[in-house]
Amino acid sequence: MEIQIGVAKINKYASSESGDTLEVIERPNGGLSVVLADGQRSGKSAKRISNMVVRKVISLLAEGVRDGPAARAASDYLYSMRGGKVQSTLNIMSIDLESNTLVITRNNPVPIYVSKGGELEKLDSESHPVGIYRSTRPVITELDLTPELTVAAFTDGLIHAGAREGNHLEISTVLIDLITQKCSSQKIADTLIDGALQLDKNRPLDDISIVVLRVIPHQGDNVRRMAVRLPIK
Amino acid sequence: MEIQIGVAKINKYASSESGDTLEVIERPNGGLSVVLADGQRSGKSAKRISNMVVRKVISLLAEGVRDGPAARAASDYLYSMRGGKVQSTLNIMSIDLESNTLVITRNNPVPIYVSKGGELEKLDSESHPVGIYRSTRPVITELDLTPELTVAAFTDGLIHAGAREGNHLEISTVLIDLITQKCSSQKIADTLIDGALQLDKNRPLDDISIVVLRVIPHQGDNVRRMAVRLPIK
Repeated sequence: MEIQIGVAKINKYASSESGDTLEVIERPNGGLSVVLADGQRSGKSAKRISNMVVRKVISLLAEGVRDGPAARAASDYLYSMRGGKVQSTLNIMSIDLESNTLVITRNNPVPIYVSKGGELEKLDSESHPVGIYRSTRPVITELDLTPELTVAAFTDGLIHAGAREGNHLEISTVLIDLITQKCSSQKIADTLIDGALQLDKNRPLDDISIVVLRVIPHQGDNVRRMAVRLPIK
Repeated sequence: MEIQIGVAKINKYASSESGDTLEVIERPNGGLSVVLADGQRSGKSAKRISNMVVRKVISLLAEGVRDGPAARAASDYLYSMRGGKVQSTLNIMSIDLESNTLVITRNNPVPIYVSKGGELEKLDSESHPVGIYRSTRPVITELDLTPELTVAAFTDGLIHAGAREGNHLEISTVLIDLITQKCSSQKIADTLIDGALQLDKNRPLDDISIVVLRVIPHQGDNVRRMAVRLPIK
């Protein structure tokens, strides 16, 4: 098998900085984790918040702490540092090669979509952002790593795209279509963000970050690869 | 302009784990850093060492520490933790959007190649791995971010590829050829690793990690992208 991750990310229109932070890191016992946080409001202050949360999570994961305790620690940390006045969403998606599972950790009212081949499932049980309450716990879903597994997570900017004119993106329809066509993770992330940008006439109302993770049959060599594109002024 | 990063990475033959660690992280004041370490020996113990070094560097960079002090701190840390008995190479390549420069930090006898268009320059002034001495300092090179800038860094596995049969890869020839053809960073990294794998008959003698970073004219939209491929058993 092989894991394929595709990320697409854009700032709110006219905002120099995205309030979303996304990092991919290696897990000390094999596999990797994608950590995505959306800080309250937008711009520099939101960036600082989401950065704080993601840093705390990746430093704990790097020490071998499991995803659930890492998310709870990040919540307590933000609560303590900001007196419970600032919130951030948090999603962790981990390829855990010790348990051979995909572990999905949600502290986010925004749903995560999962497909195990044909059907699309929506992980949308009640879940709260981190930082506001002392007792915030994540919602954790653990899935076996099997070919054709696809997971799509995103920040609420994707849901609100088009809201200025009363439109919205049919995320599940787009996902079913692209998964059926066996598109790459990057293609799926790109198609979603392109759809959002069209609805917002290339002036996104909010920061948008999309992560798509697919498990596919092994193809070709054993080389790990990573390609990054960062537009700058 | 846009920054394009391509990474290719493979384990030593029959080794379940690479002793190299490579992470890409966002810098708190804009831009990103690629951190690459090659721990002494191979397998799990090497992985633990390179992981320790990279974690220390990325946690400091995340706090806004500059690359030079972060590399010196990682050296002192490894020296203190392992009594000066274990070494690791360390390369940091940072896109610093505060100074609009590419900062290259080397604690590694292995050279880094730089091209500013046509000519290829070899950064190979004397440089020592971290962890062995109290006073280890990195060699730092700072370059303006201009289109057509290309940097290629790698671990010594790439240099030793083919050594079993007295061969070696003509890295500079391959680089000049691909840069002239304006190939993508990923294409350049892939071509180098393919060349090494051919010389080693698909049984690499050592862990190999390659990072290629290019600055190119802005093309298309403002979306940040990242694609990861991780082959698993």
